[in-house]
Amino acid sequence: MNEKVTIYDIAKKLNITAATVSRALNNNAKISETTRKLVMETANQMNYKQNQLAQALRSGRSNNVGVIVPRVDSNFFGSTIRGIEEVLQAMKYNVIICQTHEDEEREIENLNTLLNAQVDGIIISITNKSKENEKILKRITDNNIPLIFFDRRKNIDGVSSVTIDDYKAGYMATQHLIDQGCRFIAHLSGDQSLEIYENRFKGYSQALLDNDMKVNQDYVIFTKSKVEEGALAVKKLLLLDQAPDAIFSSSDFAALGAIQELKASGKSIPDDVCVVGFGNEPFTKFMELSISSVDQAALEMGKVAAEVFLEQINNKSGVKIEKKMVLSPVLQIRKSSGRK
Amino acid sequence: MNEKVTIYDIAKKLNITAATVSRALNNNAKISETTRKLVMETANQMNYKQNQLAQALRSGRSNNVGVIVPRVDSNFFGSTIRGIEEVLQAMKYNVIICQTHEDEEREIENLNTLLNAQVDGIIISITNKSKENEKILKRITDNNIPLIFFDRRKNIDGVSSVTIDDYKAGYMATQHLIDQGCRFIAHLSGDQSLEIYENRFKGYSQALLDNDMKVNQDYVIFTKSKVEEGALAVKKLLLLDQAPDAIFSSSDFAALGAIQELKASGKSIPDDVCVVGFGNEPFTKFMELSISSVDQAALEMGKVAAEVFLEQINNKSGVKIEKKMVLSPVLQIRKSSGRK
Repeated sequence: MNEKVTIYDIAKKLNITAATVSRALNNNAKISETTRKLVMETANQMNYKQNQLAQALRSGRSNNVGVIVPRVDSNFFGSTIRGIEEVLQAMKYNVIICQTHEDEEREIENLNTLLNAQVDGIIISITNKSKENEKILKRITDNNIPLIFFDRRKNIDGVSSVTIDDYKAGYMATQHLIDQGCRFIAHLSGDQSLEIYENRFKGYSQALLDNDMKVNQDYVIFTKSKVEEGALAVKKLLLLDQAPDAIFSSSDFAALGAIQELKASGKSIPDDVCVVGFGNEPFTKFMELSISSVDQAALEMGKVAAEVFLEQINNKSGVKIEKKMVLSPVLQIRKSSGRK
Repeated sequence: MNEKVTIYDIAKKLNITAATVSRALNNNAKISETTRKLVMETANQMNYKQNQLAQALRSGRSNNVGVIVPRVDSNFFGSTIRGIEEVLQAMKYNVIICQTHEDEEREIENLNTLLNAQVDGIIISITNKSKENEKILKRITDNNIPLIFFDRRKNIDGVSSVTIDDYKAGYMATQHLIDQGCRFIAHLSGDQSLEIYENRFKGYSQALLDNDMKVNQDYVIFTKSKVEEGALAVKKLLLLDQAPDAIFSSSDFAALGAIQELKASGKSIPDDVCVVGFGNEPFTKFMELSISSVDQAALEMGKVAAEVFLEQINNKSGVKIEKKMVLSPVLQIRKSSGRK
């Protein structure tokens, strides 16, 4: 890191005034082409950097891209952010991150913060499907700031999205449990006002129907992505006349809580109950009783989202691009559901 | 969220020009006091918000605070960020986050990005102790932008820091292993150019010396905070004539790898080898063979760092405040080191 070169340093070197340097750098018409070139060349040689913020106000470009996620400390969001950074940093963009903690007001504040920081684009996994945030999202698209949804999306005209095929993931996980001989399959679902959870549930339901099994609403428990909530759900399920012999959880954390509670109730896994989680969090692999889980291609999802941003920011055609990219999930079968 | 009110809306309502509104809002001397008041009151009634970025350039305040961490997806950094957010968001500050991935060039770019986003302060856990970043850190303090270190600090005049007592943590963990009857205690150390790892090592050494045991350099293995590195370290340790009967790891991830490798080599934990990690990552508690670990009071550390920032930003006295806050670690004893 060199000491910061200022316009005064350039002026001194060329024996002209700082005002002339400033005008030359800003392409002021009062400055001759010869002087402008000389100043530009000298500025380059001296590794001069204009104040990026002032520059952003003039050019409308800050080279910052904002990423908004519900939380940073899950493996899934951590990995998507890493994928976004890998692609964007190679193109000299800086990535700044905000988290919403699933709070929509916070999400709107984050969007405002990023707009005020003059980001060139926003890559966001939205918090829910209520309409509160629609006005600010519209303001972003109206201002031609590239906006890309990943994982959690909304249907908004002109906004691209990168997701995995959650329906297929739910179907695969449920079919796998049926293949293991399970007949009473419960589902720990997230908030179905979010498309991802709705689609996982739909995939689960269709797999049951395709195998001549019914969807039993008693077996569908709404849980947050938390260990304690998975344990609570199992407590409810074990009270049923016919307790389930399998659980497909839309969250690894809830799956972990479910497993802990099943064990505490004397159930053997996978012999009495098979369990599949969602997200492929590292702990699912670390456990001695490793947990089967759906891998969401997080790193890839981040990279693709970043590439969609680059395509949009570099799109000079005036034609709006809207892409809907859907990646394939991979089911990782481990001890918690792998009956021999 | 209302539609954004512009100066044109205010002008229309008052039947004056937008230029007059703009001048009034910016306290231009050409505008009469009566007009200025009228414009201000109307702007308030209409819930007008000036462009925060332009405002920041004038006032020097953006209400954004930057947080820089090596990585966001560890429980420790996730929790410190949460603590920072809890305190600052209550005071109407927005938090924006950047990660360095332990790369110093990236760290310098992050610092520049935050400066260009006009943050009011920076709370940072630095990547290493080399001197590359010192110039930009000095530029930050020279510009009176509050800079607070947490967890990983540097000795810089006028910069406050919030850490835990890593020396005490290393001492406690090692004394605990000695109390379990262990006599050949290995240490998986991080990069000792960072104070935290240096101090954990010093605490480990002093506990050995206080118990009439020697520090054996063969037992000190430098590892990154990664599962694979813990496994590699154990492979080396098991080749020694006297393999260790305990491991104090400065990272939970390395401790996990060590445990996996010990088990693969037929060692029983804690009977043959006791293991203590560092960081109290959630998985240490989740494992069937739960892992003893040092809790770093992450949430509290974040809160205290945010409070130090608030004290500095609100300090009008002109007297520079430098605080060194040291929190107490807590050793969580679990199955991996709890011999009965």
